[in-house]
Amino acid sequence: MTRLGPLAGTNVSELVADYRAGRKDPRRVIESVYAHIEAVSAKPAWISLQPLEAALLALEDASQSAIAKPLYGVPFAVKDNIDVAGLPTTAACPEFSYIPSVSATVVERLTSAGAIVIGKTNLDQFATGLVGTRSPYGACASVFDARYISGGSSSGSAVAVARGDVAFALGTDTAGSGRVPALFNRLVGLKPTRGLLSARGVVPACRSLDCVSLFTRELDEAELLLGICAGYDALDPFSRRAEQGAPLPDRPRIGVPTDESLEFFGDTESAQLFGASVDALRGLAVELVPVDLMPFRRVAELLYDGPWVAERLAAIGDFASQHPEAIQPVLRGILEGARRHSALDAFRGSYRLASLRRATEAVWESIDALIVPTAPTHYTLAEIAAEPVRLNQNLGTYTNFVNLLDLSGLAVPSGQRENGLPFGVTYLAPAFQEARLLELARRARGELPRAHEKPVAGQVWLAVAGAHLTGQPLNFELSTLGATRIRTTHTAPEYRLYALATKPPKPGLVYVGDGGSAIEVEVWELSEAAFGHFVNNIPAPLAIGMTRLADGSQVKGFVCEPYASEGARDISEFGGWREFLKQKSAPG
Amino acid sequence: MTRLGPLAGTNVSELVADYRAGRKDPRRVIESVYAHIEAVSAKPAWISLQPLEAALLALEDASQSAIAKPLYGVPFAVKDNIDVAGLPTTAACPEFSYIPSVSATVVERLTSAGAIVIGKTNLDQFATGLVGTRSPYGACASVFDARYISGGSSSGSAVAVARGDVAFALGTDTAGSGRVPALFNRLVGLKPTRGLLSARGVVPACRSLDCVSLFTRELDEAELLLGICAGYDALDPFSRRAEQGAPLPDRPRIGVPTDESLEFFGDTESAQLFGASVDALRGLAVELVPVDLMPFRRVAELLYDGPWVAERLAAIGDFASQHPEAIQPVLRGILEGARRHSALDAFRGSYRLASLRRATEAVWESIDALIVPTAPTHYTLAEIAAEPVRLNQNLGTYTNFVNLLDLSGLAVPSGQRENGLPFGVTYLAPAFQEARLLELARRARGELPRAHEKPVAGQVWLAVAGAHLTGQPLNFELSTLGATRIRTTHTAPEYRLYALATKPPKPGLVYVGDGGSAIEVEVWELSEAAFGHFVNNIPAPLAIGMTRLADGSQVKGFVCEPYASEGARDISEFGGWREFLKQKSAPG
Repeated sequence: MTRLGPLAGTNVSELVADYRAGRKDPRRVIESVYAHIEAVSAKPAWISLQPLEAALLALEDASQSAIAKPLYGVPFAVKDNIDVAGLPTTAACPEFSYIPSVSATVVERLTSAGAIVIGKTNLDQFATGLVGTRSPYGACASVFDARYISGGSSSGSAVAVARGDVAFALGTDTAGSGRVPALFNRLVGLKPTRGLLSARGVVPACRSLDCVSLFTRELDEAELLLGICAGYDALDPFSRRAEQGAPLPDRPRIGVPTDESLEFFGDTESAQLFGASVDALRGLAVELVPVDLMPFRRVAELLYDGPWVAERLAAIGDFASQHPEAIQPVLRGILEGARRHSALDAFRGSYRLASLRRATEAVWESIDALIVPTAPTHYTLAEIAAEPVRLNQNLGTYTNFVNLLDLSGLAVPSGQRENGLPFGVTYLAPAFQEARLLELARRARGELPRAHEKPVAGQVWLAVAGAHLTGQPLNFELSTLGATRIRTTHTAPEYRLYALATKPPKPGLVYVGDGGSAIEVEVWELSEAAFGHFVNNIPAPLAIGMTRLADGSQVKGFVCEPYASEGARDISEFGGWREFLKQKSAPG
Repeated sequence: MTRLGPLAGTNVSELVADYRAGRKDPRRVIESVYAHIEAVSAKPAWISLQPLEAALLALEDASQSAIAKPLYGVPFAVKDNIDVAGLPTTAACPEFSYIPSVSATVVERLTSAGAIVIGKTNLDQFATGLVGTRSPYGACASVFDARYISGGSSSGSAVAVARGDVAFALGTDTAGSGRVPALFNRLVGLKPTRGLLSARGVVPACRSLDCVSLFTRELDEAELLLGICAGYDALDPFSRRAEQGAPLPDRPRIGVPTDESLEFFGDTESAQLFGASVDALRGLAVELVPVDLMPFRRVAELLYDGPWVAERLAAIGDFASQHPEAIQPVLRGILEGARRHSALDAFRGSYRLASLRRATEAVWESIDALIVPTAPTHYTLAEIAAEPVRLNQNLGTYTNFVNLLDLSGLAVPSGQRENGLPFGVTYLAPAFQEARLLELARRARGELPRAHEKPVAGQVWLAVAGAHLTGQPLNFELSTLGATRIRTTHTAPEYRLYALATKPPKPGLVYVGDGGSAIEVEVWELSEAAFGHFVNNIPAPLAIGMTRLADGSQVKGFVCEPYASEGARDISEFGGWREFLKQKSAPG
């Protein structure tokens, strides 16, 4: 994994709270963002940066507001097909570049809320691709392995968030561009309902399908940002008024594609990880409903073989005719093919879509959400270079149909490959059901599958016993680092647990050997890079050593300096921190 | 006016009630329908008839149902681009003809409710036209004047209802085909929201825009039929689930096009009648809001000049290529033009539509409904023959944009020209607002404008004083005959009013000269043909003579045979029948 930036492991809300409480200085954070980007080299993730002075000026403006701004001082990145006033919009085509005088509506909403634009990020040219390699500004790789693609088209935005350059980023998503890069960089990728976020100030790809999307590390962040970004925009003809979504039932019915309708292009590990992700759902109160995915996949094929490519022609056809040499070769081929479609083809395609939509609609009567792999496999940069069109199309197997069918989608990390690269799934639901998807992902989080019984190379298993447990105040430090919970278990019966006098209150776990107790712990997995970042931030009297589990294995875990546990209350009898808190808060 | 059929002046609900009460025999009624159609000649309104035996068999089936059917025995007509099992569907192109084995969903819903299909009606070929003259089965004329067009494309359906061949009819409406013929035959034409009525079993014109529409004489009938016909149909990919409409406020805001955005193509009488229709609204509790209609009219132009014509190619292009000689010449030209549009044009058209839709959407923030002329003028058959394309396009000025903008529309009669031909307006509202439109039309009904101070040739003014007053039990006998209320006034102070012992209770108006009272009356206008039908059905002891009004003028009016008024209670002191009823029903 590449070097982590200053925003790695930072939760947006927590960052704002730290600013307000004076625990962090926004000016310093923003300066450190620029220093970090300079250190790791802006390229290829970034195409242009807002000058530091301008960012600090924006910060100053935001700080003068009488009203506390929900995103005050939060640095973010903007995909370079979305206008930011004063910065060039290139859409990854230098010859196309222009400098807008007005920011896109969604950027305006974020900066009005106090967020600070750091710069514009790389993409597959004109947002046409799912690979992240189709750019004259360079090919982006996954932050987890430089040999593997970052995914696209929102490649730079995903890299910038995953690396911790910024707290979150804007992408766009027409055929999966907001989800595939989230997968390959272990992020949350929220593809909102078409028209829920304004597309004014966005270079069109397929105007009838384009969505602005969000990259975050955490579900809560995506939810917060969605609330700020969403809204009807009279200036965008494709903007829609939000409709009320239905809450997720206590026992949701989750559609699971039948094996016959799944395609992993020979990637058995993906198949296994998807199976494990589905198995993990069984631990929740859900009903799993088999779903034939083929009608959905037929829709995906429409996007490539049908008339919708003519929308790309509408967006950039005139420019491409005048500047053929400026157009990425694959895109040039796509545009040429698009000219062959007639209006008759266009309407026939829309009828075919209507029929397939009808075929898929029945499915939503019997399920509340659908789980699919975010992508069927993960390719290397070399593989994509050898077969740029076919493999790109493969990657869209589970994403291409979503915008055509007017669904909402949420890509989330879900497990990890043997080689340390992330795996992920996407939850889908009808339009305007973002809240339902976020709630489902929240319930499923922490119940993630493992494809292995011990950490693979480059990964660390860490036992936590107190404030980092699921639901406890510092849990976000793990989840925002892309950590996944492996299991909930106990230590060997050789420990004592003390209530320390820290703020926030934390327990101290002390090894005593015979005569000790078994204490409840959760085991989390995270990358070595993330682990380094995590350990770096652990304050005294706590430290990271080893913890012996009930099954005799040893993992990394918290230890407590003796000065703190001496004289502290021994709460071992409760068997764990959560039980202690429960009894403490119980009346009487 | 042509000879009236057995269903003239019949209200659907009343007819069913008469059947149930044994006052009418459904078998006799249906036989009389066939006898009438034979007498007036089926052509050109009808393309094919269901055999009488089959109709009677269907009646028998309906009568065997244990559950009372809401449309039991009600005869109706079906536009011949809508499938009826066993009858040829020609779409007014004999070479295209096929015999479906299954009826269209909407026909199935009506027959399941007990209604009886009489046959299939003429149309502009493949529903392409607003004139009613583009058919190898002959050109239809307005039932009010054989020199003037019936309007189209649902020409035969409108004629069949207006003439009283049937109680109601199904049409289709893509660009106004369900509204323009309603106008020219003084009917109610309901163009429901796209997808509210299933289009399964309908020969497509522009599939994304096609609607099944309803022709009735009365608003209540349209409402009843809408409830029976509407419903989600999984077999129609364009079917939609109904959304809850908003009720019409007590003081609705009605959009009125600005003079600059109206176009009557030199027809000053239409302009005057539309102005009078708007003026008549002022008598209601409404707020009139000026609306610039130009963005709407720009949409109308899109339908002709934009890529949507390619949908007609999708519908019948292959057939037309194989049978060019079978295609009506104007339509052939349209289809040829359609082949020139590219997919790029199609998407650009959709973007243009999205922009114009946005421009029109703001209007709906400030109004609850919009009133427009149904058509700008009325052409003769000869005029259309001379300029078939341009004049047809003129007719769509106020209808073409409606389906593209996803509006609901209701065409209603509203006044009359000097030459006795009807004028009408259309109320428009966003999708799924049919109930709002019906309520508005209901409030406006009876407050209709007049362009003249005495009945024109061929028309009769009739004073009513009792059960035919607005809101009274027999008022439908007038309204279903296309009568319009001219004014509410009083007789000269020379009458006495008696409460007769009839069922339902009616008053008797008796001229006494000096010493009499002024009695409240309503003056209604109807055609001589309708008047003849009306008088023919007046039972003793009432008769039709003359009534002297407060202004000294004389109109036709009710007289009472002396045997009935002698000994009856003199209620002249109440000044009118409605006031008498009110006092009578008042407590104490």
